[in-house]
Amino acid sequence: MPQRDPFGASGVQSRRTRPAKPPLSRDAIVEEALRQITSEDDGTMSLRKIAKALDTGPASLYAYVKDMSELQALVLDRALEAVKVDETAGSWRDRLEALLRSYIEVLMRSPAVAMMAFQTTAVGPNALRIAEALLELLAQAGVDQLNAAWAIDMLTMFVTATAAEHADGTAPGAPDGPVAQAINRAPANDYPRIHAARTEIMSGTGDERFTWSVDVLVRGILSRAQS
Amino acid sequence: MPQRDPFGASGVQSRRTRPAKPPLSRDAIVEEALRQITSEDDGTMSLRKIAKALDTGPASLYAYVKDMSELQALVLDRALEAVKVDETAGSWRDRLEALLRSYIEVLMRSPAVAMMAFQTTAVGPNALRIAEALLELLAQAGVDQLNAAWAIDMLTMFVTATAAEHADGTAPGAPDGPVAQAINRAPANDYPRIHAARTEIMSGTGDERFTWSVDVLVRGILSRAQS
Repeated sequence: MPQRDPFGASGVQSRRTRPAKPPLSRDAIVEEALRQITSEDDGTMSLRKIAKALDTGPASLYAYVKDMSELQALVLDRALEAVKVDETAGSWRDRLEALLRSYIEVLMRSPAVAMMAFQTTAVGPNALRIAEALLELLAQAGVDQLNAAWAIDMLTMFVTATAAEHADGTAPGAPDGPVAQAINRAPANDYPRIHAARTEIMSGTGDERFTWSVDVLVRGILSRAQS
Repeated sequence: MPQRDPFGASGVQSRRTRPAKPPLSRDAIVEEALRQITSEDDGTMSLRKIAKALDTGPASLYAYVKDMSELQALVLDRALEAVKVDETAGSWRDRLEALLRSYIEVLMRSPAVAMMAFQTTAVGPNALRIAEALLELLAQAGVDQLNAAWAIDMLTMFVTATAAEHADGTAPGAPDGPVAQAINRAPANDYPRIHAARTEIMSGTGDERFTWSVDVLVRGILSRAQS
């Protein structure tokens, strides 16, 4: 049974007539919510804060958005509007990496957006736009439809999980972070491989790791598609 | 400067002498916390509930664990004790897949454990045991030390993110779930690739996707290591 499309027009018209107040709309609500979670303040959104900013009561918002979970889906999709799917000319390989890089940069602008992207299933128009572009690039790479369909799931999870892992602002991989402490503490007798690879485990910038990981995924997908 | 090892012995001895009460210990606290987050009730742990179960006051717990974040790290490592790193005989490839499968099964036993594993940097003895086993298997596969060191990060993220994505118990990929709704709603004119691949996008069980993803990662890591 087809359900209501949360991304469709809300169809509700504000009855506000006073000219000083902008008309209340789903768009205005989503815009304000996104502003709140990407702001420098505390990076959280709430119906109370949104209502206050739009000069109305929290109950009025429910005419435009069903619940918090619908609002999160709408805000996530609005955030994904900034993802550039076709910025680079170059080969499909260059364009794929540029797309994933733009995607992760958008998510990492705000810890709240990163966590939301990981916890929310993105199914809005911008999520579809990104999926369509990924399928197009993989088709150009010669990947068949089944492997491409499963690959976009994996690429999306890689991007959202990487962004979410860094969302709390800590750098567990920092030279004096918990990982370095644990690696340096690991006795060579009990953990010979970790001890031998301790320099490599801590090496590389986030950007180098990202490039490396995209390369591993692309090589794996291509190899799988050709087998 | 070396910091206090949160996984080291706590060194605190309970002064309880009444035989009816088990002695309070870090071990008993971690055990009870793990029981709470893996229980059928609400799957949450709290210092208050732990203290109550151990017949003491919340303040007494601080003699054994520094704070909630240290307790979470200890509980996660205790949960990871169940991950089998050397169950299968077979090739390195079979053993690697069996290890990752055991890892994800342990995390998916409880949504709280899955979320904790994703949000906590695992650096306890059991996390080290898993990393050591992964490095050993990749060495047997002929992967050099640098690629192996970076690969374990990616394999661990894949397992923890997959488990965390399913932690809320919803199945976004279900036949009538949000993804299917969005895919079926996507107009063929705007999203020709998605429309063409709509059957493939929704195909496969979680287990088939897991096997496929592990294969993509293994192929990618091997290809990268040999280049």
